[in-house]
Amino acid sequence: MATQVHQQDFVPAPASIKYNSAHPLCALGPEEITYTADLIRSQWPAQTDLRFKTITFHEPAKAELIPYFQAEHAGSALPHIDRRAFSSYYIRNTDRYHEAVVNLSIGQVERNARLGTNVHGNGDYDEILAIEKNALEDERVKAEIAKLNLPEGTVVCADPWIFGQDGEECDKRQFHVFLYMRDPANASEVDSCHYAFPLPISPVVDGITYEVTRVDMLPTGKDNTIKPVSNWVPVPPNEYIMEHQQLRKDLKPLHVVQPEGASFSVEALGSDTLQTIAWQKWRFNLHYNAREGPVLFNVQYDGRPLFYRVSLSEMNIPYADPRYPFHKKSAFDLGDAGAGAMCNDLQLGCDCLGHIQYVSSTIADDKGQPVPLPNCVCIHEQDGGIGWKHTNYRTGRAAVTRNRELVLQTIITVSNYEYIMAYIFNQVGELTYEVRATGILSTQPIDHDLCGEDGEGVPWGTVVHPGVLATHHQHIFSLRIDPNIGSLEQGNQLVYSEAHPMPVDDFNPHATGYYTQDTLVTHSAGLDLDFDANRLFKIVNPNQKNKINGKPISYKIMAPPFQKILSRPESYNYKRAEFSNRNIYVTKYQDQELYAGGWYTNQSRGGSGVRSWAERNDPISGPTGKEGDDLVVFVQFGINHVPRIEDFPVMPCEKISVHLKPVNFFDKNPGLDVPPSEQAFNQSTSAACHHQAGDVEAKVGGDGVPSVSAKLQKLDI
Amino acid sequence: MATQVHQQDFVPAPASIKYNSAHPLCALGPEEITYTADLIRSQWPAQTDLRFKTITFHEPAKAELIPYFQAEHAGSALPHIDRRAFSSYYIRNTDRYHEAVVNLSIGQVERNARLGTNVHGNGDYDEILAIEKNALEDERVKAEIAKLNLPEGTVVCADPWIFGQDGEECDKRQFHVFLYMRDPANASEVDSCHYAFPLPISPVVDGITYEVTRVDMLPTGKDNTIKPVSNWVPVPPNEYIMEHQQLRKDLKPLHVVQPEGASFSVEALGSDTLQTIAWQKWRFNLHYNAREGPVLFNVQYDGRPLFYRVSLSEMNIPYADPRYPFHKKSAFDLGDAGAGAMCNDLQLGCDCLGHIQYVSSTIADDKGQPVPLPNCVCIHEQDGGIGWKHTNYRTGRAAVTRNRELVLQTIITVSNYEYIMAYIFNQVGELTYEVRATGILSTQPIDHDLCGEDGEGVPWGTVVHPGVLATHHQHIFSLRIDPNIGSLEQGNQLVYSEAHPMPVDDFNPHATGYYTQDTLVTHSAGLDLDFDANRLFKIVNPNQKNKINGKPISYKIMAPPFQKILSRPESYNYKRAEFSNRNIYVTKYQDQELYAGGWYTNQSRGGSGVRSWAERNDPISGPTGKEGDDLVVFVQFGINHVPRIEDFPVMPCEKISVHLKPVNFFDKNPGLDVPPSEQAFNQSTSAACHHQAGDVEAKVGGDGVPSVSAKLQKLDI
Repeated sequence: MATQVHQQDFVPAPASIKYNSAHPLCALGPEEITYTADLIRSQWPAQTDLRFKTITFHEPAKAELIPYFQAEHAGSALPHIDRRAFSSYYIRNTDRYHEAVVNLSIGQVERNARLGTNVHGNGDYDEILAIEKNALEDERVKAEIAKLNLPEGTVVCADPWIFGQDGEECDKRQFHVFLYMRDPANASEVDSCHYAFPLPISPVVDGITYEVTRVDMLPTGKDNTIKPVSNWVPVPPNEYIMEHQQLRKDLKPLHVVQPEGASFSVEALGSDTLQTIAWQKWRFNLHYNAREGPVLFNVQYDGRPLFYRVSLSEMNIPYADPRYPFHKKSAFDLGDAGAGAMCNDLQLGCDCLGHIQYVSSTIADDKGQPVPLPNCVCIHEQDGGIGWKHTNYRTGRAAVTRNRELVLQTIITVSNYEYIMAYIFNQVGELTYEVRATGILSTQPIDHDLCGEDGEGVPWGTVVHPGVLATHHQHIFSLRIDPNIGSLEQGNQLVYSEAHPMPVDDFNPHATGYYTQDTLVTHSAGLDLDFDANRLFKIVNPNQKNKINGKPISYKIMAPPFQKILSRPESYNYKRAEFSNRNIYVTKYQDQELYAGGWYTNQSRGGSGVRSWAERNDPISGPTGKEGDDLVVFVQFGINHVPRIEDFPVMPCEKISVHLKPVNFFDKNPGLDVPPSEQAFNQSTSAACHHQAGDVEAKVGGDGVPSVSAKLQKLDI
Repeated sequence: MATQVHQQDFVPAPASIKYNSAHPLCALGPEEITYTADLIRSQWPAQTDLRFKTITFHEPAKAELIPYFQAEHAGSALPHIDRRAFSSYYIRNTDRYHEAVVNLSIGQVERNARLGTNVHGNGDYDEILAIEKNALEDERVKAEIAKLNLPEGTVVCADPWIFGQDGEECDKRQFHVFLYMRDPANASEVDSCHYAFPLPISPVVDGITYEVTRVDMLPTGKDNTIKPVSNWVPVPPNEYIMEHQQLRKDLKPLHVVQPEGASFSVEALGSDTLQTIAWQKWRFNLHYNAREGPVLFNVQYDGRPLFYRVSLSEMNIPYADPRYPFHKKSAFDLGDAGAGAMCNDLQLGCDCLGHIQYVSSTIADDKGQPVPLPNCVCIHEQDGGIGWKHTNYRTGRAAVTRNRELVLQTIITVSNYEYIMAYIFNQVGELTYEVRATGILSTQPIDHDLCGEDGEGVPWGTVVHPGVLATHHQHIFSLRIDPNIGSLEQGNQLVYSEAHPMPVDDFNPHATGYYTQDTLVTHSAGLDLDFDANRLFKIVNPNQKNKINGKPISYKIMAPPFQKILSRPESYNYKRAEFSNRNIYVTKYQDQELYAGGWYTNQSRGGSGVRSWAERNDPISGPTGKEGDDLVVFVQFGINHVPRIEDFPVMPCEKISVHLKPVNFFDKNPGLDVPPSEQAFNQSTSAACHHQAGDVEAKVGGDGVPSVSAKLQKLDI
C-alpha cells in the first residue's frame, strides 16, 4: 500500500489541549480527538475534506506497557510512553481510504497509508442518515411503494444494512436497505414496532455517493421467485411498548438497598478516560473504545497478576436464508459498526438495581469532532446466591456465605437488536464474561399462504407474525484473553485436561477407575471442546507451582458449547468469520492482533483474523513458557438462534457465559474469609408461617444441639 | 417374592387421626404415619419388632389423578381417591425386608411382600449412630488407632459410608466406615474440619447387627500397597468456620427489600402437607417426600397445563480411585438416603434474601414415628436482571423490563457434601431446575512424599492439603419430567430438532444457507445431545398448533452437556446407575416408575431403572400422541468433579441448570405485559458521578429527542 505522506508542517498543539497522560492506557479525550484530526488534515492540501471513520486510542506496544506495569507494581518511577492515536478516514466523496497513526506527544503523523480498494470503512451515523433519506426519497423506490396501496398516512421506515460479501459486485462500497412500515392504524406512534410490517422492497445504495443505484425486490415464498409488488394485505400490529399492553398488576416492588453504599472504589484517571477499579481483592483498569467497548487491563487478584488484557474481540451474525440478497446478511457488529459506539445511555433504576456508578466516554464523529457517550458502563454489585455452605451434622452448625458479585455492564443497540454485556467478578477469584441477547429479530416478508395454523412456513426461518419471517441466524462471539497468570512477565502455557477410563487390569479390576491427563498445546492452533472427554482448557504458569500439591498455578476456561458456523468452508461467510469454526484459538502474541475477524470487516473477504494468525503455527507455551512464547487465547461461544414466536416482537434475554476460574492457583478456597451470611447483615423478612419464628429462636440460641433435620443429615453418602 | 400377609384383624383408626384428604396429593401427616405403622405391625405376631425404612405417601395412579385434575380445572365435583401409604421395613435385627402398601381410607394393608435377599434398605439415622459408636469402640479399631500415636486428647470421628457393590461379598448388608480426626491442637472445637485429617483405617460394619466384622487398612500411595499403620505425621488444620479466618472488613451490606411483601401466594392444604402456589400466571402444587424432596404437580401457566409432575429422580456419585475399598464408592443420594430427609432447616437471612416463606414437612423414623422437618423449602422472589430491552434508535426511547423470578429452594447435607436445589420460575413461561454443588470433598489419606511443591500426586485425585487426597468423582443427576404440554389428557410427543447446512445448488449457490428439521422419537430410548448438529429436544403437543405459524406447541429442554459415567459398561457402577450413560431417556409412562436408578439402590446390582424401562422399546409419541403413548422424559446432567485445591476445605458453589422454555407455545413474547423497569418502582441509588444527575433529568423529561448515544446506534447491522 503506497504511503502518501505529504510534506508536512509541524502543527502546534492547541493551547487548550489536555493530554490524558495520567496513565498510558487513558482513552483519547475530546481535545486529543480534535488534535488528531487536525494533524491528519495537515497532511493534505488545504480544503481537502476528510471523512473520519475512526479516531481512537492507539495502544502502546506490550513491550512498552509491561515495564510500566512492573514499575506501577514496584512503586518505582514510571517510564514515559508517547501517546498515540489511530485513525482511518476517507477523502470525502471518494473511495480513497487511509489509515494513520499519530504521535500526539510530538505532534506528528508517524504513519499514513492508503488502503486497498477492497478495504472498506465501517458505517457511521451521518452516512446512515443520508442512506435512509435518499432511499425513501428515490422515485423508483416511491413507485414500488405506491404499488402497495398502503393506507393513507402510512409511515415507511428504512433500515440500512451492511452489504456483505459474496465475491460478486462487492468490491464497491454499498448498502442494502430493507423497508418496513409503522402500524397504519396508529400512524402517530413513533415507537410502533415496524418489524411487524416488513415490505418486499430493497433499495441498493452506493457507499460513496449514497445514491440509490437500483431497487431489488425480495423473494417472499418458498423459492427464489420474485412476485410483482401488489396491494398490501392488512395485518394486526405487534407492539412491545407499554401503552399497548394490559400490564400485570400483581408484581410487588423489589428493591436492592445498600445503606452504606457499594463495596467498590473507582478512581478516574486522565479526566475520566481510564478507571482503576478495586473490589474484594480485585484490581484492574477499565478502558473504553468505540470498537470493543469496555476493555480490562492488568487484572489482578490480591496483588497477583491474572490477565494483561480482556476484551470482546468480535462477533458475527450470519443468516440462514440462501436467497439473494439475504445470503449476504452476515454482520460483524464490532468491526462494521462498533460495540463501544452503539452503547446505551444507561439509566438509574432501569438497567440495574442497587447502588450504581456510571462511567462515560468520548468517541469521534465523521468530522473528527468528539461525541460524548454518557453512562456507557454501569458498575454495581449484585447478590449471586449462596457462595458456599456446609452444615456439620454432628453439631447442627451451618456455616454459609453469600456470593457477592461486581458487575460492569454495557448494553448496545445495533438497530433492531440488543446485547447486554457484563464482566462479573466474584469473591473466589472467578471472572465471568456474560452476554445476554435481547431486542428485536431482523424480519422479512413471507407470503400469507405459508403462515397461519395450516401454513407450512419455510425451514430456514420461523413465522413470528402474519406475513413476517424471522430467519434463523447464528450469534458467534469471540472473547480475547491475553493472560499473565501469576506473572507480569507472561510465560503462560495453554494446556487441555481430559478424563479417561483406566484400562481394566489388576489395578482396576472392577472397571470403575478413571484418571485425568494434561496435554500441552505447543503451537498456535484452533482447538475444540470435547465433553465426552471432559476436555478443559487451562492457562498455566509452569514457573509457579502450588506449594501444597505441586501443580502449576492455572486458570481454567469454562466455555459453553455452540454449533460452529453453518456456512460452508468455501463460502465468504466462513472465510470472513475467521474465529467462527473453533471453540478455542490460541496464537502467539503480536501487537495489534486484537480483532478475531480482522481489522476491516466491512465487505471483507477473509484472510485476516485469528484463523490466519493461528495458521502461522508459531511455537507457544514452550517448556519454559517464557516471554518469547507469549500467547493469546480467543474463546468462541454463541447461539444458533432458531427463532421462537416467543422471541417476537421483542426477545426475552438469552444468557451465555464464559467463566475463568482458578485451578490450584490458591492454597485453599479463597472465599473462606467472606463474612458469614447472617440475618443481622442481610435483614430478610419473613412471610407469615406458623413454625418459622420458633426455628429462628432455636438458631439464635445457638446451643449447638443438633436440630431434627441436622440429625437426619447423618447418613454418610 | 412370596407374599406373607398374616390373618389380619381390622385396626380401627385412632380417634385423633386427621386424614389429609384436602387433596389426593397431600403428603402423609403425623397421624397417618403412625397409623400406617400400626396397620403394618398388626400384620405380624405381637412383639414382632419392625425397623421401618420408609413410611411415605403412596401416589395414586395417574388414571385416578387425571380425572381429579380435570374436575379441579372444570370446577366440577371432585372424585374420591383413597389415601394410601407405602412402607418398606425390616423385621428388626434380621435381614427380612418387606414392602407394603396400606390403604388408610379403609384401614387395610393392601399389599405386603418380602423382598429378595439381594434387596437392601436405605440407611437411617439411628443405625448410622450405632455404626459410628460401634466402630469407634471396637477393640481392633482402637488397636489400629493406637499405632498412630495421636497427640493426647485427639478426637477421632467416624463417617459411615454406603457399602456399594462390586459383585463380591456385597449380598450382605454392610457399611464401610472412614475415620478422621479433629485438629489435635484444638481438641475442643466440635466444628473442626476433620476432613483435613483422614486416617488410613476403615472398619467394616455388618448392616444387621451393626458389629464391626473386620478392619481394613487403606492404600495411601500410588499403588495397592497397604503400609502398616505408624506414627501420625503432624499437619496444619484447614478450618472453614469463621472463628479461624481473618474476615474481610470491606464488604458493605446489600439488602433485598420488598416493602409490599412478595408477589406469590401459598395456600396450604391438609394441615400444610401440600401447597398450592400461584405467582405471575403460574399455578402448581408443591408436594414433599423423604426421597425426592420437593415435587411439583400439575404445573400450569395462565391456566394451560405444562407438566403433570416434575422431580429430581436420582443422583449418582461414582469415584475414580480403582483401589479397594474406594472402587465401591458410588452413592445414590436419593435412593440410599433420601434428598427429602437430608434437608437443611433453612434460616431467615442466611439461606436467601428478601421476603421469604418457609414450608415444613414430616417424615418417619425407624420406629414409625413422625419426625418434623421445619423449613425444608423456602419460597422467595429474586431479581434475574433485565427481562427484555429494546431502544428505538430513531426516537431514543428505551423499553425495558426486569426478569423477576420465583425460587423454591431446598438445601441438603449428605454428611460431608451439600446440594442446593431450586425450581426457578420466570415471567416468560420458563421453568429452570438448578443445582449448586458445595460442601466438603470426601477425602482420604495420601503419602506425604506425593504431596508438596515437588510431589507428583496421583492421576485419579487432587492433593488438597498435606497428606489429603480428594478423589475425582462424577455427579450425575436425573431430572424426571412427566409432561402434559397443553392438555391434561397428555398426548405429548418427544421430538428433536437439528440444524444442518443446505446442499450447494442453484438455491444455495453461495453455500451460506442452513435449515432445521424435526425428528420424531417413536419408541422409548436413550438419546444424546449433539451440539455440532444443534440437537435440541422438544416436548410437543401435536394436537395443538400455533395459530400464527402452524407449529405444534412445545417446550424445549435446554440441558448442559456432561461427561457420561466413566465406569465401564461391564462395571457394577455402570449397571447400577441406569441413567448415567445418556443425556436423555424417554419411556412410556408406567405408574411407580419414578426413580431412574431403581426403587432400591443400596448395594443394588442394576437391572432396575430407566435404562431397563427404555429397553422395552415401547411405542411413544405416536402420530396421534394420544394417551396410550403417554411418555416421561428423564434429563441427565452433571459434573465430572476433578477437585481443585480451591474446593477445599469447603467448595465454592458450582452451578448447573436445566431450562424448560416455550417454543411456539404462545403467540408472542408472554412477558410483554411485565411492567416497565422504572426508577420509581426500583428505587436504585447512584454513586457520585459528575454526569449522572444531568442524564437522569434528561430522561425524566422524556422529550423523545434521541440522546447522542441513541443517535450513534443508528447503523443497522
